[in-house]
Amino acid sequence: MTFTVRELAERVAGVVQGDPDRRLEGIAPAGSAGPEHLTYVVNEKYARLLADNGAGAALVPPDLAVEANGTTLIRVENPELAFSKLVVLFVPDEDRRPGVHQTAVLESGVNLGSDVAIGPFVTIGTDAAIGDRTEIGSGTVIGPGVIVGTDCRIGPSCTLLRGAVLGDRVRLHAGVRLAVDGFGYASGPDGPVKIPQVGRCVICSDVEIGANSTVDRGSLGDTTVGAGTRLDNLVHIGHNCRIGSNCFIVAQVGIAGSSVVEDGVRLAGQVGLAGHLTVGAGAAVGAQSGVMTDIPAGEFWSGYPARPHRMWLRSTSVFYKLPELVKRIGAFERERGEEGS
Amino acid sequence: MTFTVRELAERVAGVVQGDPDRRLEGIAPAGSAGPEHLTYVVNEKYARLLADNGAGAALVPPDLAVEANGTTLIRVENPELAFSKLVVLFVPDEDRRPGVHQTAVLESGVNLGSDVAIGPFVTIGTDAAIGDRTEIGSGTVIGPGVIVGTDCRIGPSCTLLRGAVLGDRVRLHAGVRLAVDGFGYASGPDGPVKIPQVGRCVICSDVEIGANSTVDRGSLGDTTVGAGTRLDNLVHIGHNCRIGSNCFIVAQVGIAGSSVVEDGVRLAGQVGLAGHLTVGAGAAVGAQSGVMTDIPAGEFWSGYPARPHRMWLRSTSVFYKLPELVKRIGAFERERGEEGS
Amino acid sequence: MTFTVRELAERVAGVVQGDPDRRLEGIAPAGSAGPEHLTYVVNEKYARLLADNGAGAALVPPDLAVEANGTTLIRVENPELAFSKLVVLFVPDEDRRPGVHQTAVLESGVNLGSDVAIGPFVTIGTDAAIGDRTEIGSGTVIGPGVIVGTDCRIGPSCTLLRGAVLGDRVRLHAGVRLAVDGFGYASGPDGPVKIPQVGRCVICSDVEIGANSTVDRGSLGDTTVGAGTRLDNLVHIGHNCRIGSNCFIVAQVGIAGSSVVEDGVRLAGQVGLAGHLTVGAGAAVGAQSGVMTDIPAGEFWSGYPARPHRMWLRSTSVFYKLPELVKRIGAFERERGEEGS
Repeated sequence: MTFTVRELAERVAGVVQGDPDRRLEGIAPAGSAGPEHLTYVVNEKYARLLADNGAGAALVPPDLAVEANGTTLIRVENPELAFSKLVVLFVPDEDRRPGVHQTAVLESGVNLGSDVAIGPFVTIGTDAAIGDRTEIGSGTVIGPGVIVGTDCRIGPSCTLLRGAVLGDRVRLHAGVRLAVDGFGYASGPDGPVKIPQVGRCVICSDVEIGANSTVDRGSLGDTTVGAGTRLDNLVHIGHNCRIGSNCFIVAQVGIAGSSVVEDGVRLAGQVGLAGHLTVGAGAAVGAQSGVMTDIPAGEFWSGYPARPHRMWLRSTSVFYKLPELVKRIGAFERERGEEGS
Repeated sequence: MTFTVRELAERVAGVVQGDPDRRLEGIAPAGSAGPEHLTYVVNEKYARLLADNGAGAALVPPDLAVEANGTTLIRVENPELAFSKLVVLFVPDEDRRPGVHQTAVLESGVNLGSDVAIGPFVTIGTDAAIGDRTEIGSGTVIGPGVIVGTDCRIGPSCTLLRGAVLGDRVRLHAGVRLAVDGFGYASGPDGPVKIPQVGRCVICSDVEIGANSTVDRGSLGDTTVGAGTRLDNLVHIGHNCRIGSNCFIVAQVGIAGSSVVEDGVRLAGQVGLAGHLTVGAGAAVGAQSGVMTDIPAGEFWSGYPARPHRMWLRSTSVFYKLPELVKRIGAFERERGEEGS
Repeated sequence: MTFTVRELAERVAGVVQGDPDRRLEGIAPAGSAGPEHLTYVVNEKYARLLADNGAGAALVPPDLAVEANGTTLIRVENPELAFSKLVVLFVPDEDRRPGVHQTAVLESGVNLGSDVAIGPFVTIGTDAAIGDRTEIGSGTVIGPGVIVGTDCRIGPSCTLLRGAVLGDRVRLHAGVRLAVDGFGYASGPDGPVKIPQVGRCVICSDVEIGANSTVDRGSLGDTTVGAGTRLDNLVHIGHNCRIGSNCFIVAQVGIAGSSVVEDGVRLAGQVGLAGHLTVGAGAAVGAQSGVMTDIPAGEFWSGYPARPHRMWLRSTSVFYKLPELVKRIGAFERERGEEGS
């Protein structure tokens, strides 16, 4: 498939500056785009790459000064968003295999929607339900009674155990484990006794979960991940957590059991949250922070243990001057010693 | 299955307070239990939920003041432990499929115990041995020569490579990787040379390992996880580590090679242990701590680098007052300057 | 297979001290080696174990004083390297199953090299290419168009999605996920919009990646891991990262998107790198550090946030004396108060 600049500009309501009849065959980053490529730039740093490389066309912000050097410009309000829409024209998602692969094992009572795509070596347990147009990748295991909504993309190599309930348009990347037993033990006379974990793991619509992430099922009630929330790779969500909608949870974050993360929260990479606490709506936490107390809504916290970001910043800047501070205090003490002598 | 309160109370040696003939159909958390549900509460905070929701029956501690509001109470010493025993009555583990699934691939010399349950798409390598009543979930790969004890629950989607040796009643959640090559390299004339990893990965009886956790095999000797130890999700245990019995190792902990964790140690979430060190029996380490030295038996350490917990607490509390401290020192200096002038 | 000490010494150009005709049947760590075993020691600490255990033979450095106590010594420059070469004599890699297992699913256009070993339940997508002698473990999923070089060992239970390109002699341990979608979203009028991830995930020759690690594909260009680089278990590499050659990246490290790690860098366990930064060639970062700025080539940094190692060490040593420092300042203030009164 090829497209003229004019055709592309129309799809994103862009204004063409240069030759609108130029024909493009593919997409590429600004740093390597050639005359047959569409690319995009969001700021001056990347705009400079255009002059060097001579991309065929570039989506650029309305007011950005660009030395076009032969590149046809498409002026749009949000080049990144516009580019996101156009990518699929050049890189169609061709990997879908509708139907149920002959190797898949479906136990009794499975309810398959229309136009599903079930890959090789998939196992679907008794009474599970898979919604219309949902795709299950190779080797994924769906446990008994699991419910998966419509238009989901699951797997490959995922595990959705009994108790998992998924909304629509959920996307699970490879190796995700849902409805895993949480870490729950009662004190018995002869040591800890495992508390059977029988709650649900509810993943709401439009959630995306990165590769090899794990979400425990509730111990008795639900673990919930709210609509539109995105989890990156290798994230851990403990049992009974309630994660709100439209949160961003970056790679390797760990959230201990029974914590509440309200809507729109952003947790940067490797953040840890202790159990039984609340991060208020719209709050954000800096990378690698260790959160041990509640965070009020809308605040930005950082550090170990986490505190309001500015407080952490100020203390950190002193931290790296501590040896100097010690010298200053030592100087006093010497002077005082001399005065006293 | 339904049960009267009397029947349930007898099983846990509880004392009924209210109507013993009430019939219960299921279990639910205190916050959402209805008249047909059994629930439990351990303290006043949760007891208050009973008054609002009207659970059918609740396991409660002997002396806890509860406004029953129609709920029949079952007084027991340890409600959590009692509840753990009763859960299985209402939520039987019905997912076991005895036999060897027709799709499973067993190589020559495999020794299967009686009444095993081998799921679809399982691979079992040459001369491996699977103990009586052990269950292997869908898609799990058992390498050549691997030994799995009796009454284990493995997988789905686990990998037990050559060198793995499991005791009885071991439970591996989805995606666990055992006997993985450790990170071992010798310095060669042309750069690092991989040291072949040929040791064992010994998982003792009653160990539970969470989803997507990894345990390396020994480089030459053994990596060992002691009896009754629990690992949460996404934990990493390096080669040649010796983890004691009855330890709790919470999610995303990482233990570098050749370290020793003695019996009964508790490592909170995201803790990191450097290699070649020892954490003494019964010690505990706070969440996200970075342990770079030995920890004596029985002590509670925290921080980065980890130190005795109180020491870390005191220093941390000063840390967040450092800017104020700098002002106090600055005030001195200004005064001294004035005195001197 | 058994070998005389003489035969072994010849293979590593070692000098025999003791009986060269002794016959060895296996290998063992110094602490448990018996008369039929070869072992090795690198320093005095381990040399002492020889006296107690009576290994058959031991590789030892040229000048190390060893109380042999019956053990035949083989003097070599680098015992660890020599041992690495000899291990495979005693523990041959016998697990290879050449051919394509009958259960494997190969879609159309797959290009298989000669002498490949494709395990049970493997899926290989349209137009993928697998190089000569490469081994694909049980249950691994190779996506459409993926290219795998010669002499690779992949899996079991790995996922190589569309966009993955592997060089020769690459080794992926169980559960590795390559060419996963990165965490990329554009701001849309109704909230974040997923940016289609269409770039490549290029794994150069001689790379080794540990169990359950994840490497994102580029958003539009490439994510690259350079030749000879080693990743340990549970590592995360974000989209568009460029990791150099011969790096060591220890377990649970996370690298956010678009960062550059130059050749020969060493990142210790649980290190986190923020996005869009550069770690210069030959630099090293201490365990659990949080890197938020560029690191110059050749430097050793540590801490949270990371700074030059000595700077962090000095500040950390003061950190744990802060309560004492506060007392010293308090003492001044009291004295000043008394002076002033």
